[in-house]
Amino acid sequence: MSTIANKIASLGLTLPVPSVPVAAYVPYTIAGNLVFISGQLPIENGQIKITGKLGAEIDIATGQQAAKLCALNILAHLNTACGGDLDKVARCIKLGGFVACTPDFSDQPQVINGASELMQQIFGAEGQHARFAVGTNVLPRNAAVEIEAVFALKS
Amino acid sequence: MSTIANKIASLGLTLPVPSVPVAAYVPYTIAGNLVFISGQLPIENGQIKITGKLGAEIDIATGQQAAKLCALNILAHLNTACGGDLDKVARCIKLGGFVACTPDFSDQPQVINGASELMQQIFGAEGQHARFAVGTNVLPRNAAVEIEAVFALKS
Amino acid sequence: MSTIANKIASLGLTLPVPSVPVAAYVPYTIAGNLVFISGQLPIENGQIKITGKLGAEIDIATGQQAAKLCALNILAHLNTACGGDLDKVARCIKLGGFVACTPDFSDQPQVINGASELMQQIFGAEGQHARFAVGTNVLPRNAAVEIEAVFALKS
Repeated sequence: MSTIANKIASLGLTLPVPSVPVAAYVPYTIAGNLVFISGQLPIENGQIKITGKLGAEIDIATGQQAAKLCALNILAHLNTACGGDLDKVARCIKLGGFVACTPDFSDQPQVINGASELMQQIFGAEGQHARFAVGTNVLPRNAAVEIEAVFALKS
Repeated sequence: MSTIANKIASLGLTLPVPSVPVAAYVPYTIAGNLVFISGQLPIENGQIKITGKLGAEIDIATGQQAAKLCALNILAHLNTACGGDLDKVARCIKLGGFVACTPDFSDQPQVINGASELMQQIFGAEGQHARFAVGTNVLPRNAAVEIEAVFALKS
Repeated sequence: MSTIANKIASLGLTLPVPSVPVAAYVPYTIAGNLVFISGQLPIENGQIKITGKLGAEIDIATGQQAAKLCALNILAHLNTACGGDLDKVARCIKLGGFVACTPDFSDQPQVINGASELMQQIFGAEGQHARFAVGTNVLPRNAAVEIEAVFALKS
């Protein structure tokens, strides 16, 4: 088992089965040594797990859990992109985080931390990434969070 | 006529005259073999064609048409970036799709499919891309859809 | 003093002290010769300076000032990424601009121009970039604007 796969297991986490895109696109593309991962929703066992909006029915802790689920789906696709060996990842370059929320909710950074902290736990210094975290009035399938990602692979 | 130009013609489509940016930026930049295309609106003959919001006055079919118009404007700029030869395109790497909508509309993926499917029709397997599709409360000039893109050129 | 640093000074501008991320991420990452800068808020002297929404309490001129402040924070981090020598920058590749606004405000491009025009003033032709400018219902810490960026470094 690779170093990163071991790390994921040691955190008590299991990568989900890569989700099937809900529309006419693919989960990831590779350009040079960059992997672009499609926006991921908080899916578990093939189902959207956390729907609703921050500032209304979803609290920050639940939003963070949604972000973590997005991150696990990102990692599942990244794992496929790496041919099953996450040790090929050089760096998490960027996360783009969208938080479905009411117009008066302004703690998007804390919510997206649920994904950012997981990247750092798993990849260490190489998990540190650039990021945006913004609000939005609504996301696909009423998901609480959607996160896209860019990773660099070792050359 | 190049293969891709032929494909576009065979679909009964014509690339629009590249739109002029509505502000202080340029339609595309090139970094290495990546082309970054600015967010495109559903413009036809120099006019915003489809305005309004999904969930209100715009239905999904019309939203898909808006996304397709955004995609055609993306391709017009990409064509310029390629010096008029779209056969130089290696891959559609990413689309970033924003859908103007009411807070209860959650079918953004179906809307952005209007652009994604066009990419696949034109470029085949090389048209398959990573993507995000999110909602937003409003877009420039009240456009229904805005889409940015990243492409890879053949090296 | 480098050419670009001179240009910034000649415009009467001073780069802020690089802001500390408000969450679990880093201000920038580097992949090859690309620098990805995290979404920046209109921070001055460590404080969010311009909060609120376009279409409500914030007018376009103030929104443009917010965008300019975001751009200055982007440049401060870019300067760090360049080891203090902005002459190493080859090109501003992309800005991604989010404008907090009411659902009837559709002049996001004019707002983000506050950042785009600064890039052109400072970097000249190399400051011209691809861009998206979209609305959003709310941003972190109630900021009026958030902007992310990608730059290319000279190789």
